[in-house]
Amino acid sequence: MASIATYHVEDPMAPLAMKELSAPQHGSPATGEAIRLAARSGAYTTPTSGIAATYVQANLIVLPNRYASDFRLLCKRNPVPCPLLAESRTVGSWEQLTSNIPGVGGERLANDLDLRRDIPRYMVYQDGTQVRSHCADVCKDWSEDHSAFLIGCSFSFEAALADAGLVPAHMAYNRNVPMYATTIPLCSAGVFKQSTYVVSMRFYRRKDVERVRDITRPYVATHGEPLDWDWCALERLGIQDLDKPEYGDSPVGSDGLPVRRSAQSFSNDGDDLVPVFWGCGVTPQQAVMQSGLKGTVIGHAPGHMLVLDLRDWDILAS
Amino acid sequence: MASIATYHVEDPMAPLAMKELSAPQHGSPATGEAIRLAARSGAYTTPTSGIAATYVQANLIVLPNRYASDFRLLCKRNPVPCPLLAESRTVGSWEQLTSNIPGVGGERLANDLDLRRDIPRYMVYQDGTQVRSHCADVCKDWSEDHSAFLIGCSFSFEAALADAGLVPAHMAYNRNVPMYATTIPLCSAGVFKQSTYVVSMRFYRRKDVERVRDITRPYVATHGEPLDWDWCALERLGIQDLDKPEYGDSPVGSDGLPVRRSAQSFSNDGDDLVPVFWGCGVTPQQAVMQSGLKGTVIGHAPGHMLVLDLRDWDILAS
Repeated sequence: MASIATYHVEDPMAPLAMKELSAPQHGSPATGEAIRLAARSGAYTTPTSGIAATYVQANLIVLPNRYASDFRLLCKRNPVPCPLLAESRTVGSWEQLTSNIPGVGGERLANDLDLRRDIPRYMVYQDGTQVRSHCADVCKDWSEDHSAFLIGCSFSFEAALADAGLVPAHMAYNRNVPMYATTIPLCSAGVFKQSTYVVSMRFYRRKDVERVRDITRPYVATHGEPLDWDWCALERLGIQDLDKPEYGDSPVGSDGLPVRRSAQSFSNDGDDLVPVFWGCGVTPQQAVMQSGLKGTVIGHAPGHMLVLDLRDWDILAS
Repeated sequence: MASIATYHVEDPMAPLAMKELSAPQHGSPATGEAIRLAARSGAYTTPTSGIAATYVQANLIVLPNRYASDFRLLCKRNPVPCPLLAESRTVGSWEQLTSNIPGVGGERLANDLDLRRDIPRYMVYQDGTQVRSHCADVCKDWSEDHSAFLIGCSFSFEAALADAGLVPAHMAYNRNVPMYATTIPLCSAGVFKQSTYVVSMRFYRRKDVERVRDITRPYVATHGEPLDWDWCALERLGIQDLDKPEYGDSPVGSDGLPVRRSAQSFSNDGDDLVPVFWGCGVTPQQAVMQSGLKGTVIGHAPGHMLVLDLRDWDILAS
């Protein structure tokens, strides 16, 4: 399906020291609440990968309430791209949440919350078409008929990867994670039909893939382990050009430069960098467009997440 | 991807009277327990579509216990093809189950159970390769290290479809349901990797598809609503030839003859027959082969299900 370009690996990914993580390059504050307040005031406007380490991050989708039931079913049928963390406690609420995480109450997710302003950048859709991009707030778009849903984000396991010496390159270079539209069909649910997965990608050495799988596996609430990996995955996922992600920044290797696929990449040489793909919470926004949903829909700008009070260990599967 | 043959619709599907359902063509007894005992004695050996109406039917997969944890995760990540109903209460048990259905105890699933003999026909795999097909029992293959898992089966909502005058053609003609290997990737889980969905197919008039979706939607424990439909789905699912299913019998229309795709099938004419696809519980057996699992694995023969004591209404989502 995909005609795959020839890549060459420039360099293996160099290990990055943990101190780079404890001194975030955004000059960001340390807690989820601090990031939310900074976004609310307009002081924080950039992607959230690598900030407030160990604080759980979330994708946002805000739908006319008549679609709420179908959306819950979409999440149940497609839990890898759409792990549902929480939703508005009552229709129209932008400050109180009902949690979908076993043993975690909604109030523990985020104290002092304004879903209309606490995300660095937003997207707005009208009748299935994007009408605004990367706007600072959505106060005027939000109505009393809107229901908000929070979906787990893979940024939430990046601290665990970094702890193991497996720092994602986009994090090290202060870039947004690359995200791709795929041809993997979502299982239809009511009005959500004939739409497809979005995935995020991180490069790893082939010999490290099993360790990366093991580390991210328990994070079922934030996409869990990779859904596919290695160069042969590009055809299975229908990704035409790895250098041109539909969302986020283009991918880089450990030197900050594009990664080229080499002839050796087809061998079992463990030093080769290979792409590793996870489910991505931009999927609901793509599904809204593909399903042509009527009315006003709001989402976060890809990579610009809601940072919660919840910590990574609160959502780990036992 | 798929080069699709040209089909012509021979005839619209004629409505079938309910009395055909209450007089099963297999001459089968009426309850789940009766079917299990008949299979155990060797008296019942054929597919189970349309028998013991309203009794829930289940797929079987029996794995070396070291794969049990990964298999539970595979089901959680892919609940549409792999809705987990129950598993062995203890490792090695073929007579007692722990239920995965909210509010339903394991003892309610099946009184007097022998998973080694109560299914009409079985399949056996060794190191990821099928070594026996359609055997009568698996008493000699079952070890104390095996864990059994029951997966929901779409036969369980066929009575509801028939009640609404939407009798599946394979049921009316006493045939096995057609099942297809697809290119849809399962989300990987531990040892289960780079494997793909199996789907079942039933023809319906295009104008009836939304009603078929509505009727099957609440059956989340038995694959729920269709994952895709219409002729354009063949390319999305990677199905090359609808007349050559990988499992079960080739599909027929209301006259018992093959359905040919017509030029009109591309129009919005509601009278055209279109294929409708559901997740299928043969998926785990295909995943065992695709993942090359070591050791002895047991499954049911496709279409030859375990019939439970549980009734359709016990598993309906609220």
